[in-house]
Amino acid sequence: MATLFTKIINREIPAKIIYENENVLAFEDINPQAPHHVLIVPKVEIPTINDLTPENVHHVGNLFLAAKDIAKQLGVSERGYRVVMNCNAEAGQTVFHLHLHLLGGRRLSWPPG
Amino acid sequence: MATLFTKIINREIPAKIIYENENVLAFEDINPQAPHHVLIVPKVEIPTINDLTPENVHHVGNLFLAAKDIAKQLGVSERGYRVVMNCNAEAGQTVFHLHLHLLGGRRLSWPPG
Repeated sequence: MATLFTKIINREIPAKIIYENENVLAFEDINPQAPHHVLIVPKVEIPTINDLTPENVHHVGNLFLAAKDIAKQLGVSERGYRVVMNCNAEAGQTVFHLHLHLLGGRRLSWPPG
Repeated sequence: MATLFTKIINREIPAKIIYENENVLAFEDINPQAPHHVLIVPKVEIPTINDLTPENVHHVGNLFLAAKDIAKQLGVSERGYRVVMNCNAEAGQTVFHLHLHLLGGRRLSWPPG
């Protein structure tokens, strides 16, 4: 069964898409935690960080290259932004399709959760 | 001038090193924010996410493969863990040598800072 994010990638579920290339899709988080809060997802389904291998880890690189581009697009590259990825229950992962949170537009505090 | 992290990699400054391979070094954060709080750094100096390119982004993949291994080593793979990377001032980046924070061992809250 396709994940929620695959359904967004396939335009079966609406989302505020702000960026797309052949490898990744990025859209606004529906429950934003900062003035800019974007989810960046690979177009292939990889459930968690625990499922990364030398063969598929280039998808993470693609998420980070997209994060850099999106930060520039949003005007936060120089001010700063944070990227976060959750793995499993204690981190609060709810969709088991790898996704990088990008937060920016305000001072981000520490600890990160 | 070498970054603080390059000095740790070169054993010029002490750190509680918990993991090393040919590409990355990982050590305990000196100001831990969770029962497990590890910094994972590439052995090459890349200042921020804004400096990533298709040519050097494999270093980020190596950080994530190390994160997966370290989470297993720490016994938090299944319970869960969070990885965080800060870029520039508003995210609180203080060392300009790419580093991935891995936090685990407790329930991590939301928002992530």
